[in-house]
Amino acid sequence: MAGETVDYYPMWKSLDMDTEAHDGLLGAVGQMYGDMFLTQHNRPKSTSYLDNFATNLHSGRIKEMLDAKEQGRIKKIIGSFCLYVPEEIVAAAGGVEVGLCAGADWAPEEVEKHLPRNTCPLIKGFTGFKLGRVCPYIESADLVVGENTRDGKKKGYEFFATQKPMYIMDVPHVRTDETKQMWRNEVHRLAERIEQETGQKITADSLRRAIKETNDKRRALQRLGRVRAADPTPISGLDSLLITQAAFMDDTPRLTAAINAIADECEQRVAKGEGVAPKGAKRVLYTGTPMAVPNWKLFNIIEKAGGVVVGEECCTGSRYYKDLVDEGGETVDEMIDNVADRYLNIHCAIFTPNQDREQDVIGMAHDLHADGIIDCSLSFCTIYEMEAFGMEAAAEKAGFPFMHVTTNYSTEDAGQLKTRIEAFLEMI
Amino acid sequence: MAGETVDYYPMWKSLDMDTEAHDGLLGAVGQMYGDMFLTQHNRPKSTSYLDNFATNLHSGRIKEMLDAKEQGRIKKIIGSFCLYVPEEIVAAAGGVEVGLCAGADWAPEEVEKHLPRNTCPLIKGFTGFKLGRVCPYIESADLVVGENTRDGKKKGYEFFATQKPMYIMDVPHVRTDETKQMWRNEVHRLAERIEQETGQKITADSLRRAIKETNDKRRALQRLGRVRAADPTPISGLDSLLITQAAFMDDTPRLTAAINAIADECEQRVAKGEGVAPKGAKRVLYTGTPMAVPNWKLFNIIEKAGGVVVGEECCTGSRYYKDLVDEGGETVDEMIDNVADRYLNIHCAIFTPNQDREQDVIGMAHDLHADGIIDCSLSFCTIYEMEAFGMEAAAEKAGFPFMHVTTNYSTEDAGQLKTRIEAFLEMI
Repeated sequence: MAGETVDYYPMWKSLDMDTEAHDGLLGAVGQMYGDMFLTQHNRPKSTSYLDNFATNLHSGRIKEMLDAKEQGRIKKIIGSFCLYVPEEIVAAAGGVEVGLCAGADWAPEEVEKHLPRNTCPLIKGFTGFKLGRVCPYIESADLVVGENTRDGKKKGYEFFATQKPMYIMDVPHVRTDETKQMWRNEVHRLAERIEQETGQKITADSLRRAIKETNDKRRALQRLGRVRAADPTPISGLDSLLITQAAFMDDTPRLTAAINAIADECEQRVAKGEGVAPKGAKRVLYTGTPMAVPNWKLFNIIEKAGGVVVGEECCTGSRYYKDLVDEGGETVDEMIDNVADRYLNIHCAIFTPNQDREQDVIGMAHDLHADGIIDCSLSFCTIYEMEAFGMEAAAEKAGFPFMHVTTNYSTEDAGQLKTRIEAFLEMI
Repeated sequence: MAGETVDYYPMWKSLDMDTEAHDGLLGAVGQMYGDMFLTQHNRPKSTSYLDNFATNLHSGRIKEMLDAKEQGRIKKIIGSFCLYVPEEIVAAAGGVEVGLCAGADWAPEEVEKHLPRNTCPLIKGFTGFKLGRVCPYIESADLVVGENTRDGKKKGYEFFATQKPMYIMDVPHVRTDETKQMWRNEVHRLAERIEQETGQKITADSLRRAIKETNDKRRALQRLGRVRAADPTPISGLDSLLITQAAFMDDTPRLTAAINAIADECEQRVAKGEGVAPKGAKRVLYTGTPMAVPNWKLFNIIEKAGGVVVGEECCTGSRYYKDLVDEGGETVDEMIDNVADRYLNIHCAIFTPNQDREQDVIGMAHDLHADGIIDCSLSFCTIYEMEAFGMEAAAEKAGFPFMHVTTNYSTEDAGQLKTRIEAFLEMI
């Protein structure tokens, strides 16, 4: 798509977007991208994919989806905010699932007419993007699938549903045989709802293909995750985070090919001892709340301070790709159960108990040779704030230096964060 | 129990309580009780029951339960923090269910070693009461039954379970045929767990008796709720709140008799036109988060400012008593299902959607001739903070003046609250 000169304003206007405000948003995000990503030294050349992705994020990618819909190659665009909404189901019914904008503050005065000030920035974020009409993903989505995960989202969706057609999935908070069955039923109900939306039945063939395609994406991400164990590490945390963020938005086969190309180059760099940061740079494992585009603040601070993020245990990280769907099912029902079972095993902080997450973090810290762990919650994200105490104890027991950070989408705390992170990197 | 001089220190010490700190707590609560309750004018005489209840709260009532346990009249003491833990089940298995201390800040420095500062005061409260060893209900409980309701409680119980034997119930957040069955199964599992704890099987007779006894308590509370529709209203909101608080802690038949005696006197007062506040005093309906002993701050401010609280739509109010358990079941299984179904119909803000709560509030405001509605959340109680927006819209639509308040257990905001509430009472 690069190199074309296309006028996207008619498209944005057709989506009833506020193009003037949207220009401001694109300008600000473009500036951030330049300051954070393009100033990195010695990036793998294949990360040009990311620059292209970022350029087309609100323009070319949207046009591509709308064109595909017009031409009947995809039936509907299904928006989501969470890892628990299985993209295989959407793809198998002829839809495309996209992650919706939630990574920045927008129209806060409007938002606070409907949500408390003390609400998680991610929830205020998607509400503001909608109220301000500046997210082409939200505006082009035919249906938004929410999930009863956290208190704030559960109640926040009640308002969002007054703004967009929504369908809500009920996600268990404990893992038992009974909730496993309940969740399978829930994924079957989603399948019916998506079929109804797209007008296309899920077949064994279409679901098998969707499972394979999504697993291929995860396999590529796993490869990339593994190369980061090298010292020097061949790719930055910032670029790696953006790759996972892209996985929620870009076309799956294109993305998979791009990740494999990046992984190829990274493997060659590892063989040659080339890295994005010097050998011996302090290696940080990130764990915590998800980071939606353009929430790159923390990673940028860590890496500009001379550290390097070598892994992300979070929804925009390993939780997205660590487990594959069993490819062995024969019937549609069996395959839907396989999909459901894979998603139930995401170690989100909504679950109680959730020791699995601690084990994942410590396992990744070992595998990726982390020097320390930074655990971050968005403000007012109760479940991550509360799990931070157990996480700290687990890190201490395993001998990893640990720091908990609470932040939001503003830049107000950037100075303070920088100071704390520099001190942490010096200490580890 | 009044009038006896009993040395309770040996009992408190046997519970491994910090008696010195506990003395401080009792002194402070006693002072508050005097300032708030005993300064009320023209209370019904039968509220002497409440003064006696308050006097014996941490002493006589605990001794009574421990004595009954020693003598085998009750098998175990089961603690809970929530309306969703069915007391009929506990009673039918020979136990007694008591609400645990959660209505004040205690040992905040200790608490913040385990929970984030930005945690709901109720959750910090019970954690502090435990860490400070100043709640004889917590210390005498053989088992504490928690529930996956809010994010903060769900995660807070993970820590509490390191301090006390706990059993957690999983509560649905949506109402469907499937979750109804799931919740029935959950109540059956609770029954098994309590039977295991008490060593006593639930029989059709014991469960029928427990259902009847608990319904009688609710019928008495309903009677009392109705008399408050009169103008002048015969009993204060403060006394009414304490009655519901007592319902979580006192012996059921004694409490039921006391409430009926208060209701008798109130009915006579209504017939004579006697009230606790002058005819025409501004009538407030309360809705919001529960208020555990000794959280009387808001009601005290409202009533000292010349208003009168005429009803409480909350867990320490109408939700506790508005619905009876169907008394028609024959077998233990049928009766357990009946119990479960009654509890699933509590209109807590954990449910989505939860329009039923709005309907309850507006219905009560009409029935009790409220002049306005005060909706209150404890700080960081996301679900109530978020429902406040819909509640305000519902109140506006129904023509009731509405005020939302966010507060905590400190007295720091008392002045500001007083100013806001005085302005509200003047306006309505």
